[in-house]
Amino acid sequence: MIIVQKYGGTSLADFERMENVARRIIAAKEAGNRVVVVLSAQGKHTDELVALAEAANPRGSKRERDLLLATGEQVSVTLMALVLQRLGHGAISLNARQAGIFSTSDFGAARIKKIETERILAELEMGNIVIITGFQGEARHGELTTLGRGGSDTTAVALAAALKAHACEIYTDVEGVYSADPRLVANAKKLPEISYDEMLELAALGAQVLQKRSVGLAKKYGVRLAVRSAMSDAAGTIVKEGNGVEGNFVSGVVNHDGIVRITISGVKDAPGVWYKVFDIMNDGDIAIDFVQQKKRSDGTKDISFTLDAERLDDAKAILAGNTHRLNFTGLAHDDHIAKLSVVSTGMATNPGVPSLMFEALFDAGINIDSISTSEIRVSVLIDKKEAARAAAIVHAKFFNGR
Amino acid sequence: MIIVQKYGGTSLADFERMENVARRIIAAKEAGNRVVVVLSAQGKHTDELVALAEAANPRGSKRERDLLLATGEQVSVTLMALVLQRLGHGAISLNARQAGIFSTSDFGAARIKKIETERILAELEMGNIVIITGFQGEARHGELTTLGRGGSDTTAVALAAALKAHACEIYTDVEGVYSADPRLVANAKKLPEISYDEMLELAALGAQVLQKRSVGLAKKYGVRLAVRSAMSDAAGTIVKEGNGVEGNFVSGVVNHDGIVRITISGVKDAPGVWYKVFDIMNDGDIAIDFVQQKKRSDGTKDISFTLDAERLDDAKAILAGNTHRLNFTGLAHDDHIAKLSVVSTGMATNPGVPSLMFEALFDAGINIDSISTSEIRVSVLIDKKEAARAAAIVHAKFFNGR
Repeated sequence: MIIVQKYGGTSLADFERMENVARRIIAAKEAGNRVVVVLSAQGKHTDELVALAEAANPRGSKRERDLLLATGEQVSVTLMALVLQRLGHGAISLNARQAGIFSTSDFGAARIKKIETERILAELEMGNIVIITGFQGEARHGELTTLGRGGSDTTAVALAAALKAHACEIYTDVEGVYSADPRLVANAKKLPEISYDEMLELAALGAQVLQKRSVGLAKKYGVRLAVRSAMSDAAGTIVKEGNGVEGNFVSGVVNHDGIVRITISGVKDAPGVWYKVFDIMNDGDIAIDFVQQKKRSDGTKDISFTLDAERLDDAKAILAGNTHRLNFTGLAHDDHIAKLSVVSTGMATNPGVPSLMFEALFDAGINIDSISTSEIRVSVLIDKKEAARAAAIVHAKFFNGR
Repeated sequence: MIIVQKYGGTSLADFERMENVARRIIAAKEAGNRVVVVLSAQGKHTDELVALAEAANPRGSKRERDLLLATGEQVSVTLMALVLQRLGHGAISLNARQAGIFSTSDFGAARIKKIETERILAELEMGNIVIITGFQGEARHGELTTLGRGGSDTTAVALAAALKAHACEIYTDVEGVYSADPRLVANAKKLPEISYDEMLELAALGAQVLQKRSVGLAKKYGVRLAVRSAMSDAAGTIVKEGNGVEGNFVSGVVNHDGIVRITISGVKDAPGVWYKVFDIMNDGDIAIDFVQQKKRSDGTKDISFTLDAERLDDAKAILAGNTHRLNFTGLAHDDHIAKLSVVSTGMATNPGVPSLMFEALFDAGINIDSISTSEIRVSVLIDKKEAARAAAIVHAKFFNGR
């Protein structure tokens, strides 16, 4: 049986941790599996490389940046292969080219097109543990790409699908997926299982545990994911097809305070304005939420929406570049807001979920600015100062006594 | 006209130095050339990667080590491309695969087999400065190799040959090739020209300025080398075909104190013993010199030879592993020796060179242990304590007053 394991950078930060990871890999091998391992760059190595690229040229080509960043994973996979060899096990590292991971040519945000598994299978056949660079692909003409931040999860899932692996284990620095951020909500619960759709919403809301794209890919190919800690033997969370676990009708409360609201004012009230805003933001790969408009007495509109705070500069630049197309007079932003969300596949059959959430907030005297929903999520905008308290209160409403 | 420039790690150690190098590259471009640049890894980066590999596994596979070390040049070329872009010039980095540099599969000591120049020429055609990783090759099955230490010089010469470049400029941290090591001999002279053969001998004797293999390749393909400082505009040394410069009948005095003498004792006096010693050392890629033997009254022989001190451990391990084949009883080494050499293509027509050298040493009361010669070189073994004084005296004999 083939199993794919993926380890994040924190668990590879020094040789002691690498050796711990190596022993976990060896245990999987000795249990009779053929083991394929996907690694991120060690510790803060990617951040260091990003800083180098910035220092060299803040507006340099993405191609060069990708080639530079990719050295991070190249270092971690070779070191891991060397450590495994020292511990007496056949091991070989493969980079994207060697592993046959072919991608589109979108530097910085490439997508995996296909994986030719011959070399990987041949190395497994020879008894080797195969250690593969995450986050990378080979595009046409021998070009090297990166899949974007967190792309190592995507590499692992794509490999598990291509190799028809029995399991895809994502080892990270937390013990699994929680009902809320354990740093904010003291009695957050580790979820034994979660559905792909719920995990997608949680990932989209900023839960760091799995990258959204990798969850989408896992859902598409039916790859069952096990999210576990690289540091402990605790049981993790299984991500799989399903309608949520019975009796577990709410799967997560997410407090996201890294958002801002942009308001564009003085927009001429003509058809197509909304379409243009969405179109412009989509071109910039900026996800927006809580879209609202307010008509003014002079016939113009104010349009507002929220986005990740770290994309604020990009969004402002894009909007400024489209002043003429959108025909607006003012551009402002507000960063005193936070988003609190409840995710539940059970919502379709438990319409009471939003009411319970609003009730909890009302009882605590926390004002709701606005509301946004999807089929399995309800989100509210609240004052950032209230965010932690609100998360605890809403979490208690759904999870206490269970 | 295409010119190939190669820059060593010292001149790339930080962004300030990289920017100096970038300005030199741009100057060559603006003078109307198409510029191909070969870079080593920055500063001590290769040493750091070697230390990492050692820490991971002192006996790890050479394949993994090569993949790890190659990240050093990958970092320097991408950063240089980014710096050049920031300074307003089209620039692209190419690694061995992308540049079409194909090598044998001898990890750690690969040889370049061929260079497919299409991509390089296409990038030059588009007006780009092309920055290529030194020291690396792509072998069969997408494997990556390194050419061994100093291999970036070899990459530059091979590229200059393949591209039929007008010039191959090797930028280093000295101003050219000197008549002796300037750190040891105060009035050492920079040589305006030197022949390939002389440079080969100097390189073999440990002059750090050019790697021996790259000189051999330059001779083979008639690539004229210019050795210059990356830090100054001083005229350097031209390495080209020739019989030495007229009136410059001695081209260099080299003091090499990083050598040791190994003595194998109690060897049975049978035919083939010397052959076996050479064969065994050759297999280990260890160059030996000053081979001597001494017969003992019991019919056995003592065999001694010199080698680079840094290969001592390797040599002892190899010999110990061949105790049975060589049939010896003792193995000792002596590190109180130094080698002093005079190199001159003029020696064939000036048989007086060795005599002048011996006379200078005799006048200074320095004892000669033994002598070794080639067609254009005469070397003596002396006491290490006398090495610096001997080099100055012999240098003065040939160069003072000229």
